[in-house]
Amino acid sequence: MEVIYNAATPSQLTETRAVHLLTENTPNGKKVQVLLEELRAEYGFKWETHLIDLDTDEQKKDWFLALNPNGMTPPLHAPISVTESSAILVYLQEQHDKDNIFGFSTSAERSQALQWLFFWHAAAPIRGQLSHFRSLKESHPHALNRLRTELLRIYSVLEDHLSGRHRGGVAREYLVGTGTGKYSIADIGTWPHVRGYRTASGFSDEEMASFPSLMAWIARIAARPAAREGISDKYSSADNPDAVLRGA
Amino acid sequence: MEVIYNAATPSQLTETRAVHLLTENTPNGKKVQVLLEELRAEYGFKWETHLIDLDTDEQKKDWFLALNPNGMTPPLHAPISVTESSAILVYLQEQHDKDNIFGFSTSAERSQALQWLFFWHAAAPIRGQLSHFRSLKESHPHALNRLRTELLRIYSVLEDHLSGRHRGGVAREYLVGTGTGKYSIADIGTWPHVRGYRTASGFSDEEMASFPSLMAWIARIAARPAAREGISDKYSSADNPDAVLRGA
Repeated sequence: MEVIYNAATPSQLTETRAVHLLTENTPNGKKVQVLLEELRAEYGFKWETHLIDLDTDEQKKDWFLALNPNGMTPPLHAPISVTESSAILVYLQEQHDKDNIFGFSTSAERSQALQWLFFWHAAAPIRGQLSHFRSLKESHPHALNRLRTELLRIYSVLEDHLSGRHRGGVAREYLVGTGTGKYSIADIGTWPHVRGYRTASGFSDEEMASFPSLMAWIARIAARPAAREGISDKYSSADNPDAVLRGA
Repeated sequence: MEVIYNAATPSQLTETRAVHLLTENTPNGKKVQVLLEELRAEYGFKWETHLIDLDTDEQKKDWFLALNPNGMTPPLHAPISVTESSAILVYLQEQHDKDNIFGFSTSAERSQALQWLFFWHAAAPIRGQLSHFRSLKESHPHALNRLRTELLRIYSVLEDHLSGRHRGGVAREYLVGTGTGKYSIADIGTWPHVRGYRTASGFSDEEMASFPSLMAWIARIAARPAAREGISDKYSSADNPDAVLRGA
């Protein structure tokens, strides 16, 4: 989106052209946090993190809406304003991953990474709606059943792809790339959501046992130090009140 | 995704390297149909269209799943397999719109187009869930109210952007581009869904009167001959049985 400031835009943003991440430790925030931590580990990349307190709806204030009219974290101020977590991954990879360590050089593979980013971007709202209906006191069996079934179908698409079901059982380790694939923004855009199958979506380990390739993929990425750092409590506004950014 | 054939893959696909669109006249199909019609009008671009009969679940057959494990139209066979309607728009624009008529040359504007494509890609499932709950005989007031409210919020984000609410009321005609903007894949990816506010989502013209800039944008794009051609009945499998593609 365009960068638009108003009188309440914090001076930390208006007086800089560095990369600033405005985030909270949600799955969408974690995607971007993980890629930034990977870029730091690989290139020594630097940025500034500001935490947004979602409990007080700071993301619905006018100064925030001027940066992201959708009123959601995480926008990146880089120095253009980049919104939508998956688009931020593409932007950071194109601008700051010069060796294509987390992306690809061929147009076919670049498209494939984008296809999987879009695939999950349409899955995330299903997961969000399921979380909502699970949180209600009254029972909504039709909605719960429908959303659970759809999310399990989405997991099965990932499982089929990773297990190689459609290519004679030749498995892959990551979503995109020749051979068994390469860890990339496609995986980073999907992992923070999928790993929360238990707490956020209420699936049991017994149910997830139907997706052995997906479960192995979750563990494979969780073994990366930068991935663990990117989802750590240092990105939680409750744990780091000094890093919380508010409008002027 | 990768191109994988099996014994049931239709020979029309295995024996060609031309661009083939496998579609049905849904909003996701229409996005791609509109861009292809625009490319034909501008460049004389050629492709072959095959219609997929969703009523018989052809998109869930193994030959189709090998091309798109997500089991949804429209994949493009081009000659790589490209899935997810928004990713198809990006691919076609990058590969076949050499003058960037429907896209942009600067990295900032290219990212902005991608941001709006992702924005709507996460809105489409909300619209889909609303359609489902509206179709049920029994009443689900909580789900209906929640999904309607969220879709109206999504419309308001588009309205605020087009009306220039966050930039002093300086309006724009299209989602991305300097000045009042330029008709692009960002608009094409959003328009086929939003224009169905009445029949698909059940909103009245009175409700939509809160979004005058958005309504003007719907009409602005509807005035384009290629947009009208792209959503026409020629892409309906019920109306064109000879164009329906089935597995061998």
